[in-house]
Amino acid sequence: MKSNKNIAIIGGDARYLQMIKQLSKSEDIHIQVVGFDHLNQGYTGVNQVEMDDLRVNQLDAVILPIPGTDDQGFIETTFSDQKIQITLDWLQQLPDHCVIFSGIANDYLRENAQQAGIRLIPLMGRNDVAIYNSIPTVEGTIMMAIQHTDFTIHGSNVIVLGLGRVGMSVASKFSALGAKVFVGSRNKEDIARSIEMGLTGFHMNELSSYTPNCDILINTVPAKVVTDDVIKPMMAHALIIDLASKPGGTDFEYADKRGIKAIHALGLPGIVAAKTAGEILGTVVEQVLKEHQEERGL
Amino acid sequence: MKSNKNIAIIGGDARYLQMIKQLSKSEDIHIQVVGFDHLNQGYTGVNQVEMDDLRVNQLDAVILPIPGTDDQGFIETTFSDQKIQITLDWLQQLPDHCVIFSGIANDYLRENAQQAGIRLIPLMGRNDVAIYNSIPTVEGTIMMAIQHTDFTIHGSNVIVLGLGRVGMSVASKFSALGAKVFVGSRNKEDIARSIEMGLTGFHMNELSSYTPNCDILINTVPAKVVTDDVIKPMMAHALIIDLASKPGGTDFEYADKRGIKAIHALGLPGIVAAKTAGEILGTVVEQVLKEHQEERGL
Amino acid sequence: MKSNKNIAIIGGDARYLQMIKQLSKSEDIHIQVVGFDHLNQGYTGVNQVEMDDLRVNQLDAVILPIPGTDDQGFIETTFSDQKIQITLDWLQQLPDHCVIFSGIANDYLRENAQQAGIRLIPLMGRNDVAIYNSIPTVEGTIMMAIQHTDFTIHGSNVIVLGLGRVGMSVASKFSALGAKVFVGSRNKEDIARSIEMGLTGFHMNELSSYTPNCDILINTVPAKVVTDDVIKPMMAHALIIDLASKPGGTDFEYADKRGIKAIHALGLPGIVAAKTAGEILGTVVEQVLKEHQEERGL
Amino acid sequence: MKSNKNIAIIGGDARYLQMIKQLSKSEDIHIQVVGFDHLNQGYTGVNQVEMDDLRVNQLDAVILPIPGTDDQGFIETTFSDQKIQITLDWLQQLPDHCVIFSGIANDYLRENAQQAGIRLIPLMGRNDVAIYNSIPTVEGTIMMAIQHTDFTIHGSNVIVLGLGRVGMSVASKFSALGAKVFVGSRNKEDIARSIEMGLTGFHMNELSSYTPNCDILINTVPAKVVTDDVIKPMMAHALIIDLASKPGGTDFEYADKRGIKAIHALGLPGIVAAKTAGEILGTVVEQVLKEHQEERGL
Ligand SMILES: NC(=O)c1ccc[n+]([C@@H]2O[C@H](COP(=O)([O-])OP(=O)(O)OC[C@H]3O[C@@H](n4cnc5c(N)ncnc54)[C@H](OP(=O)(O)O)[C@@H]3O)[C@@H](O)[C@H]2O)c1
Ligand SMILES: NC(=O)c1ccc[n+]([C@@H]2O[C@H](COP(=O)([O-])OP(=O)(O)OC[C@H]3O[C@@H](n4cnc5c(N)ncnc54)[C@H](OP(=O)(O)O)[C@@H]3O)[C@@H](O)[C@H]2O)c1
Ligand SMILES: NC(=O)c1ccc[n+]([C@@H]2O[C@H](COP(=O)([O-])OP(=O)(O)OC[C@H]3O[C@@H](n4cnc5c(N)ncnc54)[C@H](OP(=O)(O)O)[C@@H]3O)[C@@H](O)[C@H]2O)c1
Ligand SMILES: NC(=O)c1ccc[n+]([C@@H]2O[C@H](COP(=O)([O-])OP(=O)(O)OC[C@H]3O[C@@H](n4cnc5c(N)ncnc54)[C@H](OP(=O)(O)O)[C@@H]3O)[C@@H](O)[C@H]2O)c1
Repeated sequence: MKSNKNIAIIGGDARYLQMIKQLSKSEDIHIQVVGFDHLNQGYTGVNQVEMDDLRVNQLDAVILPIPGTDDQGFIETTFSDQKIQITLDWLQQLPDHCVIFSGIANDYLRENAQQAGIRLIPLMGRNDVAIYNSIPTVEGTIMMAIQHTDFTIHGSNVIVLGLGRVGMSVASKFSALGAKVFVGSRNKEDIARSIEMGLTGFHMNELSSYTPNCDILINTVPAKVVTDDVIKPMMAHALIIDLASKPGGTDFEYADKRGIKAIHALGLPGIVAAKTAGEILGTVVEQVLKEHQEERGL
Repeated sequence: MKSNKNIAIIGGDARYLQMIKQLSKSEDIHIQVVGFDHLNQGYTGVNQVEMDDLRVNQLDAVILPIPGTDDQGFIETTFSDQKIQITLDWLQQLPDHCVIFSGIANDYLRENAQQAGIRLIPLMGRNDVAIYNSIPTVEGTIMMAIQHTDFTIHGSNVIVLGLGRVGMSVASKFSALGAKVFVGSRNKEDIARSIEMGLTGFHMNELSSYTPNCDILINTVPAKVVTDDVIKPMMAHALIIDLASKPGGTDFEYADKRGIKAIHALGLPGIVAAKTAGEILGTVVEQVLKEHQEERGL
Repeated sequence: MKSNKNIAIIGGDARYLQMIKQLSKSEDIHIQVVGFDHLNQGYTGVNQVEMDDLRVNQLDAVILPIPGTDDQGFIETTFSDQKIQITLDWLQQLPDHCVIFSGIANDYLRENAQQAGIRLIPLMGRNDVAIYNSIPTVEGTIMMAIQHTDFTIHGSNVIVLGLGRVGMSVASKFSALGAKVFVGSRNKEDIARSIEMGLTGFHMNELSSYTPNCDILINTVPAKVVTDDVIKPMMAHALIIDLASKPGGTDFEYADKRGIKAIHALGLPGIVAAKTAGEILGTVVEQVLKEHQEERGL
Repeated sequence: MKSNKNIAIIGGDARYLQMIKQLSKSEDIHIQVVGFDHLNQGYTGVNQVEMDDLRVNQLDAVILPIPGTDDQGFIETTFSDQKIQITLDWLQQLPDHCVIFSGIANDYLRENAQQAGIRLIPLMGRNDVAIYNSIPTVEGTIMMAIQHTDFTIHGSNVIVLGLGRVGMSVASKFSALGAKVFVGSRNKEDIARSIEMGLTGFHMNELSSYTPNCDILINTVPAKVVTDDVIKPMMAHALIIDLASKPGGTDFEYADKRGIKAIHALGLPGIVAAKTAGEILGTVVEQVLKEHQEERGL
């Protein structure tokens, strides 16, 4: 016999609507949502309640918004004007086996969860989520590359920095669209993989010798790598798209001074494919709950 | 010794600026442009003149705008407020060997050119131009598919109608982005080619049995093929992008009634990649002039 | 109600065993085979008979071997020692609506079928069959390229001549394996398509300026295009694979004199994928019979 | 000023001829080879000597054969009948900064090198070498898949086990040839990557539910994963290609009993592309020597 799981989803943005839809399909998952009062019950299709209505001590999982909490525990509620705070006191009411999901986690959330003895799972830190999310990220990057240039990706010289979870997806798809792709990495095996993929691989140290012929430069490295000497030789029509999280890897000020268009493109999955992004989260949450249950021998 | 060629470019849009730049590189081509007076001389880099300044009887080629003329001979001038008319009288002053280029040609232009004994070359009718132009067309289609859906192309079911010059490029690139592509054709060899390309090929007659699972439908067939019975079974989130020239192949009214978003996306090359589109035209014009000269034994 | 079809398969090679298996699946097809007496009944799973046992005037279709007949009407029987001849007299006994299939047709077969008033369908001449067959042909070519060189296809310079039904498949798959592919064509639209496919397209006239850097040259053009001046500049390690039917497009004698390995690789589908090749034939035969029946209003 | 490097290459197979050619191009590398006496001096193009002729105390690098030594220090010499032994005594004569290369290393070699205080670099253990070598490995696998089946890779169901250095290359290339590829992995991020690549990813635990529809199974996992219950449901025409080093990951005995063809395909790079394999080694040796020199501040 399968046991039911009680899940509370507290706050969230458009992606969460799809995640809710995804999770609702499971027969053994019972969902309550808080912080969606701008939407009517029929739209979300699940039980919309207030914080006080939750039977906290019976929850198997709590899902907080992608950004987690701010440093006082307040959360983002796109579809509500309520101010909702996640406190230590509240966390301590959760049963021991309960799991808390968020996208990322700050010190406040991490420390309070630990003190309450509750397992915290920042979804965005997982390798599988990062790779799944690279798919909408790439499509957003492609959209920007088409919108912000007056030439085709096909036939253009594209530099991709970093062959990590996002970089590998970016490099392979720009190549598939007919670009000549050059991948800059700091380690030898990524250079080897780039070459195996039919791309040109080079060591990051030589970046500034590749930028003079570059039409589009896409950065995924979370470190200051697109510096003034890298930007200086670029052509006037070149475009820089920086995907790395704040503060990004580009000297935006210098690019601006040189008249090179540089865009810090963040949060692409939510922007170009909220539904897919929500499905990814739903799928992974479900999987984690299933494993968690198996671990507990249920 | 190479003989010089005198070319007059009369009217045109942003694509023509790139074409002018491209043609200017040839040492043996002398260019004069009419209808670019909103731009200053330095920007185009070529000789900007009035219609009356042209030595018509010494021209080797005349390039009219992509749309050709209207049915009274007037042409489109994006960078000028002048009203410029191409008359039979004017055409008759051109030397016999002169060639006239336009994108497409209507009866007015075709008949007057014939009467004046001047060879008319509608560039857009050429197979090579159509295939080169399919590249920016595809990228525009990709951009729209990303912008107008909240799911990724990757993993979605995409139907492409027609495996002609545009359709083949569309189908292969959407597949390269990870879509599951289904190609509808009316002949057996296109079905075979679709299968060889790793796609699913089906006969156009069976279209309505493929639309129920379709996320994005892209039409390139210049005939009414996306009819009510094709649209009826589509899912609410599905998107139709019709690329076929006016009037397109879609029953837009019915799609609207069913609440299916349908976009008639025309003129994509000029919109998403004016520079590439201009280079394509420049390259082909140059090639045609070269062949034409060889034919005349020069 | 579906009417049954009586089919006689007379002679054939390994591919035909698969075709027989494929056709046997149709409930409304009744099959008799002649010239398979080396195999036992259980293996083919169909009715093995002698020529004299056939009720010729009740046949709806006759399938002859891929090579058709020789110029006296004798056919190839891989699985029998019988000498079987297709005579005008025999053909005249067939009902008017009967269809004869073969792979290719010579004058003998064409003329006698015409005189007997029987429709003859040489399968290999059909565009769809040629494209489906290009798939095993490409794989055979890949196998040879791997076997007959001591370097990888990946990273090598491969010239493909002709972008027809076979050439397009060859070019796209060698590119997919990581080769740098150069396609030689005699018309502008094939050059445009090569470029759209991310390959390098060039005009056949310039072939000899591409061969000096070529590692593997694959010809699909049924005309003498790989001449001495094309072969002369090739490197000692280069490999020529000529796929064009006899006599091929290569000056084999000159290649031999220069010490360049040149292979005339014919009949690849039957060699590397007899089963797939048989399935292709079975599928197309079935389709043709179905259409033929529809035409007759059955 | 660049200092010269003295390298001794002792023994080796066909791959080493290409490596020698590659290294000979460097102006600052001086090469002596031992164990190539079946070839004449002109063929290798370098100084062929005897062990006793080497000025051991002046060597900067020693390159042993791919298999290293046997457990008494004897090495493989494909092009010589000499018995050559690498002894501790000999190793101790090498200068401290000298580097020893081999493909793989056993205890004998590892321990003696350590005792002599000499740095040992087993090339095949390096990630970059493993990835570069995956290229010829894949092509060998493709060749075998074509040779040992009578159907095309295109359209077939191919299972690849492991998405490591070899597995990723295998999976992407079989997909590029038109196979439907299913990748079995034991970790979630590899499943995510498979899906991003447009393949089907599944967990290794579910392998036996994928084998019933499998046409070709390719194993790269160095552990017993292709067990009897995995093989049992396979179709009679299916082919197993096991790439994992001895003893491989397949229950070959059981496969044989079930009549499923299973091939343990080892050493593919040397077999199908000795020249490429040699170039890979040459390139990496050169790179390591350069880094080593930089470390020593030369
Ligand atoms: N814009 C968006 O919408 C969006 C979406 C998803 C992710 N992101 C962001 O994109 C970035 C990359 O994410 P990811 O998942 O691809 O991370 P990842 O898998 O860790 O990849 C980062 C890559 O950068 C390389 N790298 C790190 N520091 C470097 C340095 N100093 N010099 C050279 N290379 C360096 C790493 O190489 P090693 O392997 O050698 O460490 C790795 O290949 C992150 O900032 C992430 O938050 C943005
Ligand atoms: N939106 C844009 O920005 C843009 C850009 C470029 C082109 N276009 C337009 O796109 C359309 C396609 O251009 P193209 O160059 O690809 O033309 P094309 O090469 O002629 O291809 C048209 C395809 O449609 C098929 N077809 C025609 N009539 C059909 C019917 N009644 N039923 C089924 N299939 C039919 C043709 O099949 P057969 O081979 O059997 O005839 C062919 O495969 C044109 O209208 C063109 O003006 C638009
Ligand atoms: N080896 C095998 O196992 C095998 C298997 C299948 C087919 N084949 C053979 O392969 C050959 C090609 O078959 P296919 O189906 O690809 O034929 P196809 O579709 O007619 O293609 C032939 C190509 O060659 C070009 N061409 C013809 N004559 C030319 C010339 N004089 N100069 C330059 N280009 C020329 C054609 O260009 P245009 O479009 O301008 O005419 C076309 O692109 C045939 O001989 C066929 O029998 C062999
Ligand atoms: N036949 C040839 O010519 C040839 C050529 C080159 C290499 N090889 C051999 O091929 C094999 C693979 O080489 P490689 O460079 O690809 O190694 P690798 O990068 O380590 O890849 C091995 C893969 O197997 C997975 N794996 C290991 N143990 C497993 C288990 N018990 N269950 C499920 N998955 C498991 C690993 O997953 P994790 O990431 O989770 O560990 C990894 O993805 C080696 O045996 C190598 O010697 C053969």
